[in-house]
Amino acid sequence: MINTTYIIGVGLIGGSLAIDIKKQRPDCTIYGIDTNVQHINEALELGIIDEKAAIEDIRAADLVILATPVDTAVILLPMLLDSISDFGLIVDVGSTKSNICKIVALHPKRRNFLAMHPIAGTEFSGPKAAIANLFQKKTNIICEIEKTAATLQEKALNLFATIGMRMRYMHPESHDKHIAYMSHLSHISAFMLGKTVIEKEKNERDIFDMAGSGFESTVRLAKSSPAMWTPIFKQNKDNVIETLQEYISNLSRFKALLENDDFEGVYKEMDETNYIKTILGGIR
Amino acid sequence: MINTTYIIGVGLIGGSLAIDIKKQRPDCTIYGIDTNVQHINEALELGIIDEKAAIEDIRAADLVILATPVDTAVILLPMLLDSISDFGLIVDVGSTKSNICKIVALHPKRRNFLAMHPIAGTEFSGPKAAIANLFQKKTNIICEIEKTAATLQEKALNLFATIGMRMRYMHPESHDKHIAYMSHLSHISAFMLGKTVIEKEKNERDIFDMAGSGFESTVRLAKSSPAMWTPIFKQNKDNVIETLQEYISNLSRFKALLENDDFEGVYKEMDETNYIKTILGGIR
Repeated sequence: MINTTYIIGVGLIGGSLAIDIKKQRPDCTIYGIDTNVQHINEALELGIIDEKAAIEDIRAADLVILATPVDTAVILLPMLLDSISDFGLIVDVGSTKSNICKIVALHPKRRNFLAMHPIAGTEFSGPKAAIANLFQKKTNIICEIEKTAATLQEKALNLFATIGMRMRYMHPESHDKHIAYMSHLSHISAFMLGKTVIEKEKNERDIFDMAGSGFESTVRLAKSSPAMWTPIFKQNKDNVIETLQEYISNLSRFKALLENDDFEGVYKEMDETNYIKTILGGIR
Repeated sequence: MINTTYIIGVGLIGGSLAIDIKKQRPDCTIYGIDTNVQHINEALELGIIDEKAAIEDIRAADLVILATPVDTAVILLPMLLDSISDFGLIVDVGSTKSNICKIVALHPKRRNFLAMHPIAGTEFSGPKAAIANLFQKKTNIICEIEKTAATLQEKALNLFATIGMRMRYMHPESHDKHIAYMSHLSHISAFMLGKTVIEKEKNERDIFDMAGSGFESTVRLAKSSPAMWTPIFKQNKDNVIETLQEYISNLSRFKALLENDDFEGVYKEMDETNYIKTILGGIR
């Protein structure tokens, strides 16, 4: 049974989880913990959480969801594990998995922790960004499942399945390597696209009338929160640098094709990449 | 009056215009011209055009919409102008404007031509991609309006206003310079993101389960047609190379910040670019 859930970090992900958990388990009391007082009050007003709480209160928790930025998560997790009861489970939802798994590898209560990364979100943040059904048909990457106590695994995975997540199991280092390509690089690509355009056009606001849905879609992630993304890039630095190097090489090669008037080459680059249609079509 | 409209190139843009024009002017006969026989037949079956026609038939046209790839457009336009009646208007809808304006600058029937770029579209192509109301509240850039005969201007702009376009007037070279930032660069950014990820992950299809909505949004334009985009990059080569150089510099700078563990700098880059929220919010 999950009678009490504590959400640490009542933002987009923590708040959306709170909404879906409440819907599935109406009798479960949802407590919110956040250093941002405004966020806690908003979450209460919006009915996302039932009550506010403090870190010390998690002793009584059946389930704790750690949904802070990843730098805070690695600091909090060992302390939370120190406090949690033998029957409580702490789950983190961060976008990097190696660091957090390493930090508690030898903790005596490692079995009370489950490392996961639900691949869901929007470019917005804070409790006002929380929405119902965010996790419907979304992939949830679970790391080191064998290190979590079996009864706690079952309790958590049942709950996450009922809110629509599809579980995938992966080694933390594999997760971090591949997520750099599938997510972290997209964010940098969008941020730097936004920067390039703003630098050029900031004094010519009329020019933004020329922004079509294509630009909006490609630059969308540049609205994301720097407070969330800076620690992700820090923790996944080596993988991110590698993807960025490959991206820059591909862009430079494309530029060289243009400079050399090799438009057959330009066509070929795009034609081969159209394959992304098949790949993205296949996963829906 | 517009009693006959000829659409040359019945793809996404030409087809969508055909649908909207028919809705506004039910008595107007819509003719389709396309070298791709399958596309013509699809357009007939879908009811996008009333009849198929040949280039020679445009003598009788009130309105001709030139919606081919931009390399074909610059070849066709002078011939079309040779054939058009004094009361007919030819409009092109290409994503580059300098070349096409230059090519007919001294044509004796220059006043029967209107150069424009409706900034609308999707990543799909062909008549099956054509949709109603594609141009609702979309910006339509008009170039060298003063070179088009006043009565023909009026006729065309009335029609395009009724299908929802918002007109903006711009010099062709200005258009090409700014559209490189606002549209062409987004496409290259998406294509090279797709390429980078495919190169790394093509043998690991499971990895694409990790693709969230963020990756899909950022890479969406990589589904676009190489046959349409190669001639655009060719005609706007100098501007595109310039934007690409600035984009690569910004990415390299971001990578250097990561390599130097300057995470304050990383935060600052993203924080400043969040300004894109205000800009894109402001144009809605």
